Amino acid sequence: MNYAIIFRLLALIHLAIGFALTSSFLVGIAFPFDDGDTYAVRGLELGAGISFLLAIIFMVLGRKGKATIFHKEALAVIGLGWLLASTVGAIPYYFSVEDLSFASAFFESASGFTTTGASVFSDISNLPHALLFWRSLTQWIGGLGVVVFFVAILSFLGSGAKVLFSREYSGNTEDVFDGRMQTGALRIMLLYLILSLLCAVSYRLTGMGWFDSICHMFTTVSTGGFSTLTESMAGFNSPAAEWVSILFMTLCGMSFLLILRGVRREGVKTFFANLEFVSYLGILVAASSFIILILFASGIGESAHSIIRGAIFQVTSIMTTTGFATQNFAAWAYPAQITLLCLMIVGGCSGSTAGGVKVIRLVVGFRSILFHLERAFRPHVIRPMRVNKRTMSTSEIHEISTFLVLAFFVVVISCIVVSIFEPHLDPLSLFSAVLACLFNIGPGLGEVGPLENFGALEDYTKVYLGILMIMGRLEFYAILVLFAPSLWKRFS
Amino acid sequence: MNYAIIFRLLALIHLAIGFALTSSFLVGIAFPFDDGDTYAVRGLELGAGISFLLAIIFMVLGRKGKATIFHKEALAVIGLGWLLASTVGAIPYYFSVEDLSFASAFFESASGFTTTGASVFSDISNLPHALLFWRSLTQWIGGLGVVVFFVAILSFLGSGAKVLFSREYSGNTEDVFDGRMQTGALRIMLLYLILSLLCAVSYRLTGMGWFDSICHMFTTVSTGGFSTLTESMAGFNSPAAEWVSILFMTLCGMSFLLILRGVRREGVKTFFANLEFVSYLGILVAASSFIILILFASGIGESAHSIIRGAIFQVTSIMTTTGFATQNFAAWAYPAQITLLCLMIVGGCSGSTAGGVKVIRLVVGFRSILFHLERAFRPHVIRPMRVNKRTMSTSEIHEISTFLVLAFFVVVISCIVVSIFEPHLDPLSLFSAVLACLFNIGPGLGEVGPLENFGALEDYTKVYLGILMIMGRLEFYAILVLFAPSLWKRFS
Ligand SMILES: [K+]
Ligand SMILES: [K+]
Repeated sequence: MNYAIIFRLLALIHLAIGFALTSSFLVGIAFPFDDGDTYAVRGLELGAGISFLLAIIFMVLGRKGKATIFHKEALAVIGLGWLLASTVGAIPYYFSVEDLSFASAFFESASGFTTTGASVFSDISNLPHALLFWRSLTQWIGGLGVVVFFVAILSFLGSGAKVLFSREYSGNTEDVFDGRMQTGALRIMLLYLILSLLCAVSYRLTGMGWFDSICHMFTTVSTGGFSTLTESMAGFNSPAAEWVSILFMTLCGMSFLLILRGVRREGVKTFFANLEFVSYLGILVAASSFIILILFASGIGESAHSIIRGAIFQVTSIMTTTGFATQNFAAWAYPAQITLLCLMIVGGCSGSTAGGVKVIRLVVGFRSILFHLERAFRPHVIRPMRVNKRTMSTSEIHEISTFLVLAFFVVVISCIVVSIFEPHLDPLSLFSAVLACLFNIGPGLGEVGPLENFGALEDYTKVYLGILMIMGRLEFYAILVLFAPSLWKRFS
Repeated sequence: MNYAIIFRLLALIHLAIGFALTSSFLVGIAFPFDDGDTYAVRGLELGAGISFLLAIIFMVLGRKGKATIFHKEALAVIGLGWLLASTVGAIPYYFSVEDLSFASAFFESASGFTTTGASVFSDISNLPHALLFWRSLTQWIGGLGVVVFFVAILSFLGSGAKVLFSREYSGNTEDVFDGRMQTGALRIMLLYLILSLLCAVSYRLTGMGWFDSICHMFTTVSTGGFSTLTESMAGFNSPAAEWVSILFMTLCGMSFLLILRGVRREGVKTFFANLEFVSYLGILVAASSFIILILFASGIGESAHSIIRGAIFQVTSIMTTTGFATQNFAAWAYPAQITLLCLMIVGGCSGSTAGGVKVIRLVVGFRSILFHLERAFRPHVIRPMRVNKRTMSTSEIHEISTFLVLAFFVVVISCIVVSIFEPHLDPLSLFSAVLACLFNIGPGLGEVGPLENFGALEDYTKVYLGILMIMGRLEFYAILVLFAPSLWKRFS
């Protein structure tokens, strides 16, 4: 284990968090003050101070040693980085909100950096501006981290990096980067910034104020889902804003590498030749149509446009794991709720800011089943599996099946753990809470539905769910390896 | 496709069902008669007649052609055999119970032959003796079919058969059979008969009448779970009978091949050297202890012995997928219900009469995760996976992961389908109904809990769930291939 490089990268992360806290502090003092704001600004100052201090300590600790980084260092940095960021990011909440346990603050902060969007606050609209800005900003940083940081860190790595890299961006890597990952990381960062700019301006044009536009931009492009209003997007009562939201959620649930490729080369054709994108769009359309039918059938008495928009909005919001709400979907007919639960598991595309198990994994899993089925009665026919004109190796396919099995195990074990912590939580709320956190969605169903929050849970449940968010965000391995004793051997 | 051999084997199956129907008819006329009994006996006569007729037709159809059988013929026979048996077996119910749709009769019959034990009847105790006997007998035949029929049919096959064979009895095959599968099938049949004899006598010794003893023996050794009483095992109010039940459920949830090996060779040592058995026992003990704690904590005010026995009974009953009930576990505290839901998925050991995904698959799936985890930070270390001193090939491991992914897909799709058919069924009832049918358990939770039944569901739901039972019982492939067009090509 090369500790020096780990310390140096952690120093970099804390420097960035320090600057983010400082900018939230600046936003805070730009608005008129009352007591709550004073506390929020102090909390942010304190957080920024601790971040910079930690950055210096890590820099000192990492001043000697080689700069080489291997798999295990990369995994450790990613895992530790998100854990530490969530802890430091909890400081402003802890010091500015009354009667808030540190576990609750950690939950809110982890929910931000992992772009989950589950909240412990029941009254969001009355939080100080500075804190609302910080809360949204953590999601934007988290989203950027997911699409860029993986690539940036991996540009340090040798050829072996592709294993980790392609775990995250399965099947789309080679032709964009041609080995020049750093250029790739910069391009992705640029794309993220352009999408952010477009999104903020679009929100502003629908009539939102600049503060709300920027905060919602932060949480839309990162598919994070935090809002500045207690009622989430429903609070704006603006169809135009909802359509803008639908558009950008859909875009940010797509592979950023694919968007880059589409923009730089063949255009729209690129998208429709991509198996994952086509499946993603297909599921969005099918699920929306299905839920529109159900809502019309159950006759909830709104206008046709509002029903259609509401259904499309919720389907997009859940499948891209954003988690904005315009409707109380926890009160929809059961078939609609079941559909949303399934979409929570699916999630967006690989290489996007969305969570879930990712569309491509399910597509490959499904094809793998068909292959085994054919093998069952034609044992001697062996056909390669092709995804986007590229033949997948057996070990790649196996890796994806194993990922799905791992997700299944984590969900089952988490359901048991949370049911022990929260014996009175009914199974649907429990199951959806685990999915909502693990797959970085935000709201669940039942007692953790879109009108509810996670504030009533026990402190240890909040810590557990917070760690679950980070585990899901980093696709399990980066957190799980932290528990492997052999990772920590000095000279292994 | 060699249709001749398929017809001949189907003729054999229908001959066996005809004799089983005849024996139920004989039991019926041994008891004193009333109107219900008259109808039941007539229904059984009719069923027997149709079975024998079909047997003759199939024999005529299959009189010409080669006797060779390959993978696809074997799969087709197994799939068609269970489907046809369930359909013919529905005749007695349809003709002897008033106002019963054929879909309900098919559900009950499929529930029998697949050893599921879910019922559409709300009042079981008042069913005619002949029908109760037939109902239990179908489970005993189904259980025998699962452990023996696979082996017997596969003894026809060449070397390629091992693929299918080892899918069912993964990891335990070679050293018992040494290629002499027919001997193996006979030995398993003998073991099944001995266990049946011991079980029936044990029940009788606890004070049950012979009729109840034999009927419950039928449904215990097959881990089927049909009872002759509406209250299931609770109706006997006999701790001794419950302990007998616990013993035989546990035994029949074990691999029959392992029991054979233990009996014939090293004894108890064999069992504790077997990874699957040790895990199976470990889960049983852990889950029982956990539920005992929960029941004591929620203080339901029974005696300690009754709480302990009740917990062990329900854990064993659910994990071996038998489904007998002594308690209304749908009213237990949520953590206990969640635990039972998880046990439903686990199921018993491979090569037993139990359903579920099977312990060995989960153990291999779990180990596979650990392997990938190690690979994530030590990409160059490759270690073989050993199960019971045998190295598993990558393709075997992959096959198991794919099976788990397939199970996941079938559960998700079935939840959506059933929620469309039954829009008012709450998610817990829905999910547990799907698990209870697919994994051949019987009772679920909520509206399909141990005190409830499946009678209130729509006819198409019953047909769907009936097919789901067969699909689960045959581990998916034998039913899924029936939908593959290339299976049906005459000369492929
Ligand atoms: K989210
Ligand atoms: K059963």
